[in-house]
Amino acid sequence: MYSPLISQLIESLRVLPGVGPKSAQRMALQLLERNQSGALRLAGALTQACEKVGRCESCRTLTEETVCSLCKSTRRDASLLCIVEMPADVFALEQSGTFSGKYFVLMGKLSPLDGIGPKELGLEQLAHRFAVGEIDEVIIATNPTMEGEATAHYIAEMAKQHKLKVSRIAHGVPLGGELEFIDGGTLAHALASRREI
Amino acid sequence: MYSPLISQLIESLRVLPGVGPKSAQRMALQLLERNQSGALRLAGALTQACEKVGRCESCRTLTEETVCSLCKSTRRDASLLCIVEMPADVFALEQSGTFSGKYFVLMGKLSPLDGIGPKELGLEQLAHRFAVGEIDEVIIATNPTMEGEATAHYIAEMAKQHKLKVSRIAHGVPLGGELEFIDGGTLAHALASRREI
Ligand SMILES: [Zn+2]
Ligand SMILES: [Zn+2]
Repeated sequence: MYSPLISQLIESLRVLPGVGPKSAQRMALQLLERNQSGALRLAGALTQACEKVGRCESCRTLTEETVCSLCKSTRRDASLLCIVEMPADVFALEQSGTFSGKYFVLMGKLSPLDGIGPKELGLEQLAHRFAVGEIDEVIIATNPTMEGEATAHYIAEMAKQHKLKVSRIAHGVPLGGELEFIDGGTLAHALASRREI
Repeated sequence: MYSPLISQLIESLRVLPGVGPKSAQRMALQLLERNQSGALRLAGALTQACEKVGRCESCRTLTEETVCSLCKSTRRDASLLCIVEMPADVFALEQSGTFSGKYFVLMGKLSPLDGIGPKELGLEQLAHRFAVGEIDEVIIATNPTMEGEATAHYIAEMAKQHKLKVSRIAHGVPLGGELEFIDGGTLAHALASRREI
């Protein structure tokens, strides 16, 4: 029904997470009808990012710089290393504004069935940073899923070999969360991790 | 927090309808982490479409061809012209599989406050097609909004000057729609347009 180039654009938009055929169609038409300059800007941003963005040599996060700005910063405490799964986790922690150490981004979690082992997560590089002696404490902030926990456990063992202080961020009922709306797994964890007051 | 090129990509993705800061961030990271080839394909599709897609000379719909495939088709009834607001309306009607005439796409509706008058909707071109004598019947399928109705009325008057048969598609409760979930405006219209049985 649509001309070949419009059909191709609709199909290509489906590469975006959460975009089905209906919204891809709406996006394509709206861009072509009303915002071609925005569409061209998006095309340029996609091309540039794909060409230039790689991994930070120090923390593995996505960046076009050799070493990312957080790793470069001299105002952050290099003795404190927080380990997260993905770049979005760094963003979330930075938004909270309470962490002033450095990060290490695994870009995944241990998942043997998908062929993701220690090597794929840069754990040799992490072990090297543990060995160098700059780090005193490691905070593991992988997600509280089965794979995230296994990854946390693996890294904790590594850190202990280097006699580093290791902690795991707390999981439980979110502040302001109402018990009745919290899933059972979280509640079970919150109960098991209860602290005397 | 994100490097300049990633921030620029997140910002650029917000040009897409329905994409807020959170989903733009998720889209950008997911493309860079997992699907750079898809991202480059999207960039190419956007560029090509913006460069080549224009308006069909005959019906005004979006296409990279001089005359779109529906207008070119000799298997469609050229004496029957359906007038719609947007290209997506042609798609919806074609999906229904019951219309075999030709289309005219206004690419909007009369909206004097936004500076959209007869000229912007190609109504001179439409009048010319009315005058040529190929068309017998005009079906007006603009949306049942105030502006869509005003546009329908304007075009109906034009068609009558050329002694053409003019109709408006029916509006009312959709088939399978349950009354309790239909908005008041639609119900009021459905009541006012009731037919004796
Ligand atoms: Zn870094
Ligand atoms: Zn056409």
